[in-house]
Amino acid sequence: MVEAVKTHDGWYCMHDFRKIDWAKWRTLTQEKRSHLISDFISFIDSLEKIAEEKTGSFYLFDVTGHKADLGFMLLRPELSDLNQIESQFNKLEIADYFIRVHSYISVIELSTYTGDSTDPKVMKHIQNRLYPQLPLNKYICFYPMNKKRDGDDNWYRLPMNERQQLMRDHGMIGRQYAGQIRQFITGSIGLDDHEWGVTLFSNDALQFKKIVYEMRFDEASSRYGDFPYFMVGVHLKKEAVPAFLSL
Amino acid sequence: MVEAVKTHDGWYCMHDFRKIDWAKWRTLTQEKRSHLISDFISFIDSLEKIAEEKTGSFYLFDVTGHKADLGFMLLRPELSDLNQIESQFNKLEIADYFIRVHSYISVIELSTYTGDSTDPKVMKHIQNRLYPQLPLNKYICFYPMNKKRDGDDNWYRLPMNERQQLMRDHGMIGRQYAGQIRQFITGSIGLDDHEWGVTLFSNDALQFKKIVYEMRFDEASSRYGDFPYFMVGVHLKKEAVPAFLSL
Amino acid sequence: MVEAVKTHDGWYCMHDFRKIDWAKWRTLTQEKRSHLISDFISFIDSLEKIAEEKTGSFYLFDVTGHKADLGFMLLRPELSDLNQIESQFNKLEIADYFIRVHSYISVIELSTYTGDSTDPKVMKHIQNRLYPQLPLNKYICFYPMNKKRDGDDNWYRLPMNERQQLMRDHGMIGRQYAGQIRQFITGSIGLDDHEWGVTLFSNDALQFKKIVYEMRFDEASSRYGDFPYFMVGVHLKKEAVPAFLSL
Amino acid sequence: MVEAVKTHDGWYCMHDFRKIDWAKWRTLTQEKRSHLISDFISFIDSLEKIAEEKTGSFYLFDVTGHKADLGFMLLRPELSDLNQIESQFNKLEIADYFIRVHSYISVIELSTYTGDSTDPKVMKHIQNRLYPQLPLNKYICFYPMNKKRDGDDNWYRLPMNERQQLMRDHGMIGRQYAGQIRQFITGSIGLDDHEWGVTLFSNDALQFKKIVYEMRFDEASSRYGDFPYFMVGVHLKKEAVPAFLSL
Amino acid sequence: MVEAVKTHDGWYCMHDFRKIDWAKWRTLTQEKRSHLISDFISFIDSLEKIAEEKTGSFYLFDVTGHKADLGFMLLRPELSDLNQIESQFNKLEIADYFIRVHSYISVIELSTYTGDSTDPKVMKHIQNRLYPQLPLNKYICFYPMNKKRDGDDNWYRLPMNERQQLMRDHGMIGRQYAGQIRQFITGSIGLDDHEWGVTLFSNDALQFKKIVYEMRFDEASSRYGDFPYFMVGVHLKKEAVPAFLSL
Repeated sequence: MVEAVKTHDGWYCMHDFRKIDWAKWRTLTQEKRSHLISDFISFIDSLEKIAEEKTGSFYLFDVTGHKADLGFMLLRPELSDLNQIESQFNKLEIADYFIRVHSYISVIELSTYTGDSTDPKVMKHIQNRLYPQLPLNKYICFYPMNKKRDGDDNWYRLPMNERQQLMRDHGMIGRQYAGQIRQFITGSIGLDDHEWGVTLFSNDALQFKKIVYEMRFDEASSRYGDFPYFMVGVHLKKEAVPAFLSL
Repeated sequence: MVEAVKTHDGWYCMHDFRKIDWAKWRTLTQEKRSHLISDFISFIDSLEKIAEEKTGSFYLFDVTGHKADLGFMLLRPELSDLNQIESQFNKLEIADYFIRVHSYISVIELSTYTGDSTDPKVMKHIQNRLYPQLPLNKYICFYPMNKKRDGDDNWYRLPMNERQQLMRDHGMIGRQYAGQIRQFITGSIGLDDHEWGVTLFSNDALQFKKIVYEMRFDEASSRYGDFPYFMVGVHLKKEAVPAFLSL
Repeated sequence: MVEAVKTHDGWYCMHDFRKIDWAKWRTLTQEKRSHLISDFISFIDSLEKIAEEKTGSFYLFDVTGHKADLGFMLLRPELSDLNQIESQFNKLEIADYFIRVHSYISVIELSTYTGDSTDPKVMKHIQNRLYPQLPLNKYICFYPMNKKRDGDDNWYRLPMNERQQLMRDHGMIGRQYAGQIRQFITGSIGLDDHEWGVTLFSNDALQFKKIVYEMRFDEASSRYGDFPYFMVGVHLKKEAVPAFLSL
Repeated sequence: MVEAVKTHDGWYCMHDFRKIDWAKWRTLTQEKRSHLISDFISFIDSLEKIAEEKTGSFYLFDVTGHKADLGFMLLRPELSDLNQIESQFNKLEIADYFIRVHSYISVIELSTYTGDSTDPKVMKHIQNRLYPQLPLNKYICFYPMNKKRDGDDNWYRLPMNERQQLMRDHGMIGRQYAGQIRQFITGSIGLDDHEWGVTLFSNDALQFKKIVYEMRFDEASSRYGDFPYFMVGVHLKKEAVPAFLSL
Repeated sequence: MVEAVKTHDGWYCMHDFRKIDWAKWRTLTQEKRSHLISDFISFIDSLEKIAEEKTGSFYLFDVTGHKADLGFMLLRPELSDLNQIESQFNKLEIADYFIRVHSYISVIELSTYTGDSTDPKVMKHIQNRLYPQLPLNKYICFYPMNKKRDGDDNWYRLPMNERQQLMRDHGMIGRQYAGQIRQFITGSIGLDDHEWGVTLFSNDALQFKKIVYEMRFDEASSRYGDFPYFMVGVHLKKEAVPAFLSL
C-alpha cells in the first residue's frame, strides 16, 4: 500500500460567492440602500476586528464576469465558525439582495512532501503559514484542483518518493513567481467536492495566467492535475463598498 | 461469473437538504415567525419520540457553505415511512421558507466481506449497527460513493477474495479513527443515483479530511473509488433552532 | 458488421415526474383545493377507464426524495396519445401547482435474445407482455440504462451470440426475483436520452437494491451497463390522493 | 494529415424549443388568449408565405415529454434570417407565455463521402436536398451527434477511404427505411455545441427507434458515434393551434 | 520536463452574454423603454470613445439561438477595467431587463510557436495584434478550447518541437481562410474555466463551419482539441439597437 503524505492543517477556509440582484436593489430608496450598506460595513468591521485579534482573516473582492459579483475568502479556527459567519451574513437585510451562488470549504494545509522539520525557525514559519493574514493585493484567483485517478495516470498509486519528486519540480516553478504571487493551498478532501483549493494573490492579473500555464507542462499538472474551474476578482476595499453598491 | 457479496440491511435512510429563503422569511412578523418555529419544534419533537421508541433516529444539522442551510439525516423501518416524514415536513407552513435542494435515499448496510457469523454476540452487534441511534457529535460529513467500472479498473469484475482483501485493508485505516469518528454505510444501488452513502460523525471536523485523505491512497479508493461530492455540517440541537432562525 | 437483435414493440410509455409547489398550494382556500383535487380525481378516473378498456395502463406514485413529489407511469398505443395525456393533464388547473421536472419516453420492448417463437402460447404470452396492465405493488423503481461503447467495453461491437449469452446469464438472475419483483423493459433509443428504461414493481423496496446490486456483478452490467439515475416511489391509490394533497 | 471530406451546404436551420407557462396563460381572459393566438397564427402565416416563396421552410410540432411543449424547425438562406425570425417571434406578446428552453443552429449539409458528380440530374437532386421543403409527416425526431475522438476511437484520424466505407455501410441501413423515414442532416461544427443535427420524419414513431437502434450496431455509430440527447414530437398543424392552446 | 512556449499578452477580454426578459420589457411604457434605450446608447457611446482613444475595443452582437440575445466582446488594458465596465453596465436601469447568462474572461495572446523575432516590423505587427481594434464583420463566432490531457493524448507532455510542428500545420489551414475570416486567440488559463478562447469574424457565417470542420481533421485538433461549446451571432450596430429593442 502506498503511503499518504502527512499534512499540517491550519485555519478553516470558506470562499463565498454572491450575485447582486441589481433589479431588486434598484427598487429601494437611496436612503434605504445607504442604511443597508452601513449594516454591511459594520459586518466587514467585525471581520476586520477578528483579523486584528489574529483569530481569523478575510479578503473581499469584486468578481470578474458573470459567475458572481461579490466574493469573500474567510479564515477561522473552527468549521463551526464558518457557519456562524454565514449565519451573521445571511441575517443582514442586505443579503436579500446578494444571491448566494457558490462556496468552497477547505482548510489551510501544508504538505510535508518537501520534508518536515523540528527546527524552531521552520516551525515558526509553518505556524505563520497555517494561520496567515491574507494579503491586500489588487487581484485574487481561486481554483479547486483534483489529482487524477484515470487508468495509468493515478496520482494516488504513485510511491511516496515519486510524488515527492514531482511536487519538488512543481514547487520550483512556483518559487520563480515568489515576488509576484502569494499562494495559499487549502485541502478540501472530505469537506467539499474537490480535493484542494488554490488561492493566488497578485498586483498583476497576468501572473495568474503565466504561472498556471507554465505549471500545466509540469508532470504533476500535465499528467495528474484536474482543474474544474477558475474564478478571478479585484480587491474590494471597505472604503470602496458604498461606491461599488451605489446606483 | 463474479459472486456478489451478501449484505445485511437495516433501516431506510434519507438525507434531506434545504436552503432557507431568508428574504421571504424576513417578510414575516416576529410573531408569525415564532409561531412557525414552534410548529417546526413540534415536528422535531415527533422525530425525537420515534427515536425514543427505537423505531427510527435522526440528526439535524446546519450545513456549511452554499449547498444548503438545513440538513436532516433520518432513519426509519420502511421506505414509505420516509415518504410520510417528507409529507409531514412539506405540509408544515415553515417548509414554504425551506427550499428543498437535495436528498439521498439509501438503507443501512453491513457487507459480509469481513466474514459472517452465527455467534449470538456478533449477531446482537450487527442488529445494533443495522438499527442504530445516530450519535450527537458536533460535526457531520456525508458523501455518496461509487465503485468504478472503467476499463481495467472495474470493481465488479474482481473476484470475491480480491475484493475481500481490499476491503480488509480499507477497514484497517478506518479502525485507526475509531475513537475519533463514527461511520455509517448506507447502500443506495437501485434506490438513488450513486451506489453507497457514507456518513461520518466527529467532534473534530479535521478528522473527516484526515480519514478520507488517508483512505484515498488505499487501493479500494485510489483505483476503484468515485466520490461525486461532499457535504459537511454542524449539529443543530433542538434548543438552538429558535436562535438559528431568529432575525 | 454486427447484427442487431430483433425486438417486439408494444405500448408507448411515459414516466412523468412533478414537484408540488406546496407554498403556492397553501395560498388557496380549502374549498378551492377540494375543487381542484376533484378535477384531478376525474383525470385519474379517465386513466382508469382507458385501463378498463385495455387501451392503456397507468401507475400513480408518491416519489421518495427531493427529485419529485408525484410520478405517473403511463402506457398508450401511440406516441401522440402520450402528448394528448400531457395536454389533458397540463390544462387541469391543479397542474399549476405541479411543476413538471422530468419525464421519460419509451416503448415496451421484448428482445429476441433468448430466441423467438411461433408457438401460439408463447405468442399470446408475448402479446400480454407488450400490452400489459401495470401491477398494483406498493413500490416502484425506475431507471434508465445505456450499454457502454468505451474502448474495449463496447456492447454494440460484440457478436450476436456473445450478447445472447450475456443476456441469458443476466436473465438468470432476474428469474430468481420472479416472485418478488415484476419488471418492465422499455426501449428509448431514438425517443429519449438513454437507450432503455427499466421499471420494477415490488411490495418490498429492499428487493430493488438486492436485484440491482446482484446484477451489477453480472458481465452484461459490470462491463457494459451504464445507469445514470434511479427514482423510487410508493404507490398512490386514487383514494389516497385527497389525503396526500390535504393541508 | 488526414483529408477532410467536402460538403455541400444549403439553408441554415434552427430547431427552437419552448415550454408553455400554462399557469401564467391561465391568468388571461379567454378573449385575451384568443387575441394572442390570432397573432401567433399570423406569425405562422408569415412562415408559410416564406415556404410558398421557396425562400425557406418550417415544421411546427408538439414536443412529447417535459423537455418542451412547442418545437419549430426553421430553414432560411442566411444565419441572420434566423435571428430575424427569433426577434419576430420573441416580440409577439404570446411569447411571454412560451419560455425558450433550447435551440440548435446548423446548416443543411450533404457530404461527398459517397462521391461527387457533375451530372446535371444529380446536381438538380442535390439542390433539392440543400433547399428542401420539410415534409408533413405526423412525427419528428431530432438529435445532435458527434464523432468520437477518444483514444483509438478517433473518427477524425481515420483515412478518407475508411470513413467513406463506414459511411457507405451506414447509408445502406438508412436506405432500408427510405419509404418510412425522411432524414435531414445538418452540420453544426462551428455553429453550435455538437457536430451534426439529425432530423427524422415519419408517420410511425416506432421507425425512429428501429433505425437508430439498428444503426447503433454499425461501426460508424457503435465505435464513433456520440448521441447526447433525443427529442420527439407530433406535427402541430396551424389549424390545430387554437385547440392546442385552448383551456 | 517539457518546456512551455512563451506568449505575448495584450488586452484583457470579456465576452459577455445576456438574455432579454421580453415579458418584463413589455410591461414598460413606450416612453420608458425609449428612455432606457437612450441610456444604453450612451453606454455604447462610451465604449466607442474608448475605442477611438485606442484604449480598448468592443463588438456588440445579436446572439443566434436560445443561449443569449445580446453579446459583447470587450477589450481593455487591465482586468479591473473589465470589472468597471460590468459595473457600469449592471447599474444601467436597462440591465434589469438583460439577464446575464454567461461570460468569458481571457487575454489576447500570441504564442511564439512559429518563432519569435526582434525585427522592428514584426514587433510592430505583434503590437497591433495584441492591442487590436475589432473588425465590423457581419458575423461573430466564439468558442473556448482546451488541449486534451487524456492518457496518450496529452498535449502538455509533447516536446516543444512536436507542438511547434502541429501548430505550424494548424496555422497552414488558418491561412487559407485569411481573406474570409479574422481570428483572435485569447488565453484564459488561470482566468476562466477553459484554456483558450477563439473568436472568429466573417461576412459569411458558413466560413465558421468550414474552417472549424477542416481543422478538426488536423492532428492539433483531432487528437488534442476539446471544444466545449460554440456561440454565433450577428453584428448589432449602435444605430440598429432601437429597432432591435422596439416592441
